[in-house]
Amino acid sequence: MQQDKIKQIIAQMTVEEKASLCSGQDFWHLKGVERLGVPAVMVADGPHGLRKQEVAGDHLGLNESIAAVCFPAGCASAASFDRGLLKKLGETLGNECQAENISTILGPAMNIKRSPLCGRNFEYYSEDPLLTTELAGAFVEGVQSQNIGTSPKHFLANNQETRRTTSSSEVDERTLREIYLAAFEGMVIEQKPWTMMSAYNRINGVFASENKRYMTDILRKEWGFDGLVMTDWGAMNERVAGLKAGVDIEMPGPAEENDQAIVEAVESGLLDEAILDRSCAAILGLIFRYTENRNESAVFDREKDSEIAREIAEESIILLKNEGELLPLSADKKIAFIGKYAAKPRYQGGGSSNINSYRVTSALDAVSGNANILYSPGFTDEGPDEKMLRNAIETAQQAEVAVIFAGLPDSFESEGYDRKHMNLPDWQNELIASVSHVQPNTVVVLHNGSAVEMPWIASVSAVLEAYLGGQEVGAAVVNILFGKTNPSGRLAETFPLRLEDNPSYLSFGKDNEQVDYSEGVFVGYRYYESKAMEVLFPFGHGLSYTTFQYSNLKLDKTTMLDSEELNVSVDVENTGERVGKEVVQLYVSPKSNTIVRPAKELKGFEKIELQPGEKRTMTFTLNKRSFAYWNTEINDWYAESGAYEVQIGKSAKETVLSENVEVQSSVEIPVVYHLNSRMGDIMKNAHTGAILENALAGFYVPVADNASENQATHENSAISSEMIAAMMADMPLRQLASFMPGVTRGKLNELVNQLNEKIYQEV
Amino acid sequence: MQQDKIKQIIAQMTVEEKASLCSGQDFWHLKGVERLGVPAVMVADGPHGLRKQEVAGDHLGLNESIAAVCFPAGCASAASFDRGLLKKLGETLGNECQAENISTILGPAMNIKRSPLCGRNFEYYSEDPLLTTELAGAFVEGVQSQNIGTSPKHFLANNQETRRTTSSSEVDERTLREIYLAAFEGMVIEQKPWTMMSAYNRINGVFASENKRYMTDILRKEWGFDGLVMTDWGAMNERVAGLKAGVDIEMPGPAEENDQAIVEAVESGLLDEAILDRSCAAILGLIFRYTENRNESAVFDREKDSEIAREIAEESIILLKNEGELLPLSADKKIAFIGKYAAKPRYQGGGSSNINSYRVTSALDAVSGNANILYSPGFTDEGPDEKMLRNAIETAQQAEVAVIFAGLPDSFESEGYDRKHMNLPDWQNELIASVSHVQPNTVVVLHNGSAVEMPWIASVSAVLEAYLGGQEVGAAVVNILFGKTNPSGRLAETFPLRLEDNPSYLSFGKDNEQVDYSEGVFVGYRYYESKAMEVLFPFGHGLSYTTFQYSNLKLDKTTMLDSEELNVSVDVENTGERVGKEVVQLYVSPKSNTIVRPAKELKGFEKIELQPGEKRTMTFTLNKRSFAYWNTEINDWYAESGAYEVQIGKSAKETVLSENVEVQSSVEIPVVYHLNSRMGDIMKNAHTGAILENALAGFYVPVADNASENQATHENSAISSEMIAAMMADMPLRQLASFMPGVTRGKLNELVNQLNEKIYQEV
Repeated sequence: MQQDKIKQIIAQMTVEEKASLCSGQDFWHLKGVERLGVPAVMVADGPHGLRKQEVAGDHLGLNESIAAVCFPAGCASAASFDRGLLKKLGETLGNECQAENISTILGPAMNIKRSPLCGRNFEYYSEDPLLTTELAGAFVEGVQSQNIGTSPKHFLANNQETRRTTSSSEVDERTLREIYLAAFEGMVIEQKPWTMMSAYNRINGVFASENKRYMTDILRKEWGFDGLVMTDWGAMNERVAGLKAGVDIEMPGPAEENDQAIVEAVESGLLDEAILDRSCAAILGLIFRYTENRNESAVFDREKDSEIAREIAEESIILLKNEGELLPLSADKKIAFIGKYAAKPRYQGGGSSNINSYRVTSALDAVSGNANILYSPGFTDEGPDEKMLRNAIETAQQAEVAVIFAGLPDSFESEGYDRKHMNLPDWQNELIASVSHVQPNTVVVLHNGSAVEMPWIASVSAVLEAYLGGQEVGAAVVNILFGKTNPSGRLAETFPLRLEDNPSYLSFGKDNEQVDYSEGVFVGYRYYESKAMEVLFPFGHGLSYTTFQYSNLKLDKTTMLDSEELNVSVDVENTGERVGKEVVQLYVSPKSNTIVRPAKELKGFEKIELQPGEKRTMTFTLNKRSFAYWNTEINDWYAESGAYEVQIGKSAKETVLSENVEVQSSVEIPVVYHLNSRMGDIMKNAHTGAILENALAGFYVPVADNASENQATHENSAISSEMIAAMMADMPLRQLASFMPGVTRGKLNELVNQLNEKIYQEV
Repeated sequence: MQQDKIKQIIAQMTVEEKASLCSGQDFWHLKGVERLGVPAVMVADGPHGLRKQEVAGDHLGLNESIAAVCFPAGCASAASFDRGLLKKLGETLGNECQAENISTILGPAMNIKRSPLCGRNFEYYSEDPLLTTELAGAFVEGVQSQNIGTSPKHFLANNQETRRTTSSSEVDERTLREIYLAAFEGMVIEQKPWTMMSAYNRINGVFASENKRYMTDILRKEWGFDGLVMTDWGAMNERVAGLKAGVDIEMPGPAEENDQAIVEAVESGLLDEAILDRSCAAILGLIFRYTENRNESAVFDREKDSEIAREIAEESIILLKNEGELLPLSADKKIAFIGKYAAKPRYQGGGSSNINSYRVTSALDAVSGNANILYSPGFTDEGPDEKMLRNAIETAQQAEVAVIFAGLPDSFESEGYDRKHMNLPDWQNELIASVSHVQPNTVVVLHNGSAVEMPWIASVSAVLEAYLGGQEVGAAVVNILFGKTNPSGRLAETFPLRLEDNPSYLSFGKDNEQVDYSEGVFVGYRYYESKAMEVLFPFGHGLSYTTFQYSNLKLDKTTMLDSEELNVSVDVENTGERVGKEVVQLYVSPKSNTIVRPAKELKGFEKIELQPGEKRTMTFTLNKRSFAYWNTEINDWYAESGAYEVQIGKSAKETVLSENVEVQSSVEIPVVYHLNSRMGDIMKNAHTGAILENALAGFYVPVADNASENQATHENSAISSEMIAAMMADMPLRQLASFMPGVTRGKLNELVNQLNEKIYQEV
């Protein structure tokens, strides 16, 4: 029994040894305890490939890493909307780790895309917490199936690079629960990751790495996490506070001063040794989980894994626009490939996730041998170049179709800093405008880690969003362009028309230690849909070379208790002539909510492949959580009684079918009446309403009838019965003592007691 | 000396008498002290007319009031942008009060228009605090020049009717200072109103009527207010807490229970009698200010005051659109007046401000005798009416011009509840669309208390915004329509394209006890301009029948200390053929701000009349406050060093001239360095930067050069020098101990001490 073994080891350890275990051995290793036969184990950056560094003498982890396979970054793989694919990616990486003796891969990176500008958005999945947590969960499941740990990151509310090491993300509880915690929650509960990585930033003033509320109370106690929490590299502030908060290991190491601080805290009684023991148990648990389940025969097969990288890229590319069905292209057409990214794709981003790619396949590589393809580089990343532009225009004129490989230069997106705008380089926009001016059949292929503005959108026929698609992106794009693969990616984030439209525009990435998440739960499509705004492309959007028809949406109940489940089924048919994949999206839209809520939220999604003419019935099961918001009065999820629309959509904007269900809450929000309870609120409940009416009959009160008699009688009076009714409803009980002679606070207090009694008898 | 007399009276009063003085005698009177010869005095609702009730036996103040003159409501008079006019209104009302033996008129109502939906917007002035405080100040000055008190209301942050009696306005300090307090601040400091009215709502959890921070600390101590604070009617929560907070008198009265509570609190020592004495002194102060300065000869001349009402209405009407210069109309044209408001204008709103108008002049009244005017009522306020619609279309066809008198029905806007949408009744929109379809020369005259959507805007030639223009609105509109008066009103609020565009859309008026002002300082045009949004009509917009040209904008300095003043001059010329009035608007736009600020803010305005061909030089004086924001670190206004653009605009959107000035702050924000100070921040200051560089030289640190050498060398590396630079800048000192062997926290603490020493030597 591992637990017993760990206990025995801890029992033999000195306080110094225990403390020492709580920081890394170097940049990439957790310490072992040589004396007791506990080995040191290595971790490595990821998560869209393995960044295993060979050289130890590098204190910032910047040296050359081993040649590895660069898979599509999170921005791309999330667009697959495919749990199975993410699991497969995880399995592949897990096997690579086994082959390379890596205990834990540092990822998935799963922060919510609060703004399109976040420098690390390319690593993250989505603006939606359900999509994030489901896809990250599948990835974790895949990695851990190979007995390799993951370190989902960056927990919590690390949504910008600007001042990430010290700034405080100021987020209200409901927003944390519904958006930022929810992104991690499902993954933690269902997959129990071996580790979690605490973020650099503070949350409501307290560093993540010393934040007991999130690292222990919610993560461990509410969600049942049983692994170890490690800091992001250099994220530890005060070591002893961190340990008390539940942060087990500080990375990188060694951190002799902090180890010593732990020893002193135990010796002086400031730190309960049991806390240190728990952390040691967590650390040893990871070490043994790994070392006792080694797969010594694993082989890092770069060729095989490159094929998987291509497959994931193909599933992730999104056909955003396809006017006149210009795509797919036929291979016998004369086609101009334009843009340097056709030869040298931008396929990954800068920072800790950067992979030393074993090889890179460009689109030009993928069409080599096809004499119908012309090529003009069109631009550099350095600045405008008139000659290249002219050459590109001429090349486009010579072809039947122009495919422009555009995107963001490396320097635009990176870990460490945020973008300042949402534009492609001006000279690329000019290139696209100029080419599409002379060539009506223009396709734009985009290589970028996050949303961009497309001022030329109306003048191009087709757009493929390839994101940062990994080393095989060129092959994947070519397979999509020529219809070898039918595109099936969907946007995991909204593309707004303009940066200014984003809800975080006025507060994101400023030079300020306090980052106010003032948009609250209205992140991404939750905002655009609630404000009924036009967007460039909505969340969930993506076209196909075939067509799908939806019919027969059925809910198995029209009314339900919040404790029941609701089964939803809908038929999807491939009505085109090609095999294709559809992402069936289910949204729930509250229709009678009294609290402000997003217009709709994604509550289910499934990707399916259908042959031409094939029809399948998709089913979804909804439960209380599908209808609930985080209620801060009861500190729990709460599905308010009322009507909810269940929507099947092609995107967050385009609903194709919908049905209503009436949900009945089984939870009563406790109400305590007092002198400031409003009459209107008391009247909402039949029981308390009766008590109030009864009491009012005993007072002299101008209730509605009486009031309208008293109403001013001059001809132009605008003191309406609506106003009287509104003012009576808005009247707190105490005002009766102000307005009604003879009504005393004493009498009102008796009434309050009566109101509260009644309530408690009911419960 | 009044103060001595008051002291003597208080010295003779029993605790019971003092406590009794702290609540009203009835709905409309402050108590006197008969025994000591202190008379009771009456107050009356306003503020756009006198609502003096005759009948005492009415506990909700709903009975008939005396016939009086109904002046334009605040929404209208604010559109005059004319301090002199507001002062004249105040003088007129003050004289009416003297004539009617009213000590104090309850107003001006001056809350900020956070949302177009607020039910009382028609009473309020603007979305801009400077415009509000200047116009309200002029009104107060006018009233008080007649030795009558005002009661500016509702202090503070009472910006919606929904749940106004109990809800808490949750507003951050900076937003309160820059927007909601600022609306009152200038008026209080410059005019010292005799009273202030505390609002119903809570501010950040604490009822206004027991909120010492706003009722005493800021109002009295910071702003020098020396009058009495009275509650809004029924706004008192806990009486003793209210007294301690600085709320002197509870209205209405009598409130024997609360008076008794005060007595008991004094007797038990819970309330210092000196606090009670201060309140009594304030109350007696008001009574004597009034009674000792009575103007017994004052006459309420309803005819004369009606003329003033018409004049104010004319100055307040805004020409929003005038395509092809359709307006002014020539009287010999055949003109169809359409709409019931031509016969029965909507000229005031519902609630406590509702005036029993001595007479009402409709547009039809004003054109009586002109045989060229046809009339069709067009609609009722009750619902669609096909017959009336058809008749209106036919009438419009028979004329050369159609003038539609549209607007919001009484029931749409009132004290007591908020609007749910921003639309005119559907049938009015249909009427306007139908009439403008058959009649190319269509004018719309609007009667409404706040912004409305105009789906038909493109199909009508002209729009006059008459707001709720008081009893003479019909005469005023006719004078504008026919060019007897040249329109000169300007919008004191933005008209957004759609309600959803408003910054408070997701949080305003919800059924929630907590109202989050999550848009912060981005209220009104501050939001629309900062987000570069299109609007229907911007703040400050208004056309004229003549044209004005601006030239020769001069700042008397290009750089200035924040302690200096900046003199701005600009030439304005009437380049048209009619006499007309222009509102010269000055906005300041920060250009190098490090903190998030509105794109621009109104910092000066002047209305001038110019003869055709006349040119005048307008001057404005700007000071520190013109450039400052509220800095929560130093708890003061702070004009950050940097560039500011001084803009002269026709509206918040249309800048006609601009010049830059460089402001140098004389205030140093104190910085205390610590282990979490970021290297980039330390480097910003030359002194501390040198200390840091010196220290780094003694550590082993991979500074920029070194780091780029260490940079990963694989071909596709995206670990760029930009990223290294950003990450170094973002590194808090403590991370040096994590990443640099040999750097200890001890050494870093020495460095921190050095950094702080240096700073303090400088100061």
